[in-house]
Amino acid sequence: MDRSVDVVVVGAGVAGLVAARDLVRGGADVLVLEARDRVGGRLLNAELPGGVPIEVGGQWVGPGQDRALGLIEALGLRTYPTYGEGRHIAEIGSSRSRYTGRIPRVNPLVLADIGQAQYRLDRLARRVAAAGPWQAHDAEKLDAQTFDTWLRKTARTTAGRAFFRLVTEAVFSAEPEDMSALWAAFYVGAAGGLDPLINTEGGAQQDRVVGGTQRIALALAQELGDRVALEAPVADVDWEASGVRVVTRRGLTVRARRAVIAVPPPLTARIRFTPGLPGDRDHLVQRMPMGRVIKVNVAYDEPFWRHEGLSGQANSTHRALGTVFDNTPFGGSPAVLVGFLEGRHADVAARLDTGARRELVIDDLVGYFGPRARNPIAYIERDWADEEYSRGCYGAFTAPSTLTRFGCALRTPVGPVHWAGTETATKWAGYIDGAAESGHRVAHEILPAVLPALA
Amino acid sequence: MDRSVDVVVVGAGVAGLVAARDLVRGGADVLVLEARDRVGGRLLNAELPGGVPIEVGGQWVGPGQDRALGLIEALGLRTYPTYGEGRHIAEIGSSRSRYTGRIPRVNPLVLADIGQAQYRLDRLARRVAAAGPWQAHDAEKLDAQTFDTWLRKTARTTAGRAFFRLVTEAVFSAEPEDMSALWAAFYVGAAGGLDPLINTEGGAQQDRVVGGTQRIALALAQELGDRVALEAPVADVDWEASGVRVVTRRGLTVRARRAVIAVPPPLTARIRFTPGLPGDRDHLVQRMPMGRVIKVNVAYDEPFWRHEGLSGQANSTHRALGTVFDNTPFGGSPAVLVGFLEGRHADVAARLDTGARRELVIDDLVGYFGPRARNPIAYIERDWADEEYSRGCYGAFTAPSTLTRFGCALRTPVGPVHWAGTETATKWAGYIDGAAESGHRVAHEILPAVLPALA
Repeated sequence: MDRSVDVVVVGAGVAGLVAARDLVRGGADVLVLEARDRVGGRLLNAELPGGVPIEVGGQWVGPGQDRALGLIEALGLRTYPTYGEGRHIAEIGSSRSRYTGRIPRVNPLVLADIGQAQYRLDRLARRVAAAGPWQAHDAEKLDAQTFDTWLRKTARTTAGRAFFRLVTEAVFSAEPEDMSALWAAFYVGAAGGLDPLINTEGGAQQDRVVGGTQRIALALAQELGDRVALEAPVADVDWEASGVRVVTRRGLTVRARRAVIAVPPPLTARIRFTPGLPGDRDHLVQRMPMGRVIKVNVAYDEPFWRHEGLSGQANSTHRALGTVFDNTPFGGSPAVLVGFLEGRHADVAARLDTGARRELVIDDLVGYFGPRARNPIAYIERDWADEEYSRGCYGAFTAPSTLTRFGCALRTPVGPVHWAGTETATKWAGYIDGAAESGHRVAHEILPAVLPALA
Repeated sequence: MDRSVDVVVVGAGVAGLVAARDLVRGGADVLVLEARDRVGGRLLNAELPGGVPIEVGGQWVGPGQDRALGLIEALGLRTYPTYGEGRHIAEIGSSRSRYTGRIPRVNPLVLADIGQAQYRLDRLARRVAAAGPWQAHDAEKLDAQTFDTWLRKTARTTAGRAFFRLVTEAVFSAEPEDMSALWAAFYVGAAGGLDPLINTEGGAQQDRVVGGTQRIALALAQELGDRVALEAPVADVDWEASGVRVVTRRGLTVRARRAVIAVPPPLTARIRFTPGLPGDRDHLVQRMPMGRVIKVNVAYDEPFWRHEGLSGQANSTHRALGTVFDNTPFGGSPAVLVGFLEGRHADVAARLDTGARRELVIDDLVGYFGPRARNPIAYIERDWADEEYSRGCYGAFTAPSTLTRFGCALRTPVGPVHWAGTETATKWAGYIDGAAESGHRVAHEILPAVLPALA
């Protein structure tokens, strides 16, 4: 079976779908090839008891994410605020507090330490994001060290360092020692600072999409109609200056003038390009691994924590389940707590059998919220490292010395092959917003080249 | 076309071929699938004028590499010493010296700095190698930082640090900031210390194989006969506890009770396994990128440097061509200098066109050896990052936090799938010797399981 289009898009996550939509609107003939039997990539709904959708992948949007919010509005979707009333739980170092607002009650010395480190990180992040990560003034120096090395020089107290480890796990689902300090600074800068990344109200966790965040992708796909082909995993991309021939594992061949590759960076290497991609490009993606997270939604017949004046938001520097939110869906039933096993915690948890892992999660929820957390009505977990077509979440990061050596290949097209995906964004890289940015960008790169042929 | 064997081996480098040979000797029916139209992997001969073979890939062996030396002897091959008579050239920081023996003439303060840093590195390396890298006492601390961070704390002088950068490039074809300090320590320890790695006489560059080092692989393949299938790139490995079904891109299907995957770590991810491999394994190889080197053999009608009392060995902390050797083949003609563009130098050189890159190389050779280097009779270069089935050389390394998080997956079989390759070795990882070790190991893992069926 052969098809011929102007542009073939590989990957029906938000990046690929936004690219396809822009290209179609620009007048191009487009086909999106999606490996899975569904669209959405790292956005995925599952079902709670009663058939209510719940997100097992990416789920939040917040202020400053103008592309994501614009998309949601344009698609006729609605948002609602993440539940955050009442007191949050914070276990930072040896202190355990229940607090409202943004600042947990901890030792003032630790608080001062966190404050000065955050000030320095934000200042650095602004500078790196403004210059572009590999053009920044001290890019090589930052890229020569892990974020952990940078943090050890910057945060001085044990609890302050533990706080930044927790934050890194929560934001990157990776450890500070996994990534380049330059990547961390870029990523924070691309979000406008650390507070926008970690806050609920006023930050990246502020709002949710009614019906589950995968609806963004589902709505985009609906608009594209039969331009999206599911169960079409791409095996080969043969290319020359004038175009590509893309072949799926099931024998579909698509010829196009341009291709958009909109899959996570390490997975781009699992497509066979002929001729092979340049060394810079190959080495870039050899060095952009994915974060690792096991996301767990735990449903209860009622939101007992709310009755006790708790928001359901909890963080701990010493529990496996370092971050928890009230994740009750729009409509209010059932009550849900969502927890994240991130980075090294995911490694350990993944090696347990399902029963032992569930016990670990429930024990931590009981630790936070008391014995009523012991008896959920549903337990839904997802280890994104096991997903063949994601191989990790939330996003990729760069190992040290990668951006300065190979960053130049991140967005540079190779002949007719263009690169999308949230990791290629300049703002909110790693978020739905960044995915949308990258989709718009590739469409903008491609349309002028494809349009003359349409005229 | 279908085949059925006891063991299928993917990759006909030294690791795969040694595994196959051991398995065959143990009584197993074996088929080796090699993607290229030749065996040898990162060992490859090219032809000098007159048809004399010269190595464009790995080439040296030295004392302590008992498995490699044993193999060479058993295969009836002969070795000869790397030419090293006369004075070597060293440009370390601002000093330029011509020296004999091991120690270049440099500022005594710099020499003392290098000495103490090497002492500390060797001590650390012994400890890490003895314990196994991810079990070592301070494994997590070492794995949380780049080798560059460790070196900055350890070497105090600018020239001393430049020396260790040069050494890192020469040994790993990577930069100190690319890799985990734990990997660097493990690798040095696996070779028995820094001197064994960097020395010519008494070290890893001591000897060469008559006829070119690829002959090791060629001789192994000859012994295996039609058990080696060339141009058989593996696309899919379907597996269950009882065996595998391996399918090549050209439609050959091989069923076997066990599989040996003997390709560079990042390339193992480019084979599609069904069911998918565990998250630990996938994340390990997402974080083991290859080094990058462009190897250049430059031939002359006579070894003019020898006539001037020079050995042809040259190193520089500030030239792109940081390491040069006399690479004249056995028989003495033509005269050859071999130079290495490693790490960041390879990045820069790869972005030049062929003519400009050649000029860069020749200019550096003239800088070392004078104007007679200006007129070679042949120029043979190889950028291993461009090779689809190597995607870098000399070997892979681990990014920070990889060994401690995912090292457990390095050698652990997944069902019937076993892992070979020099990067899985405990001694001389990255060398021919390590490749042989890994081949012996997997055969040893597999034979007891396969033999009962043969009885």
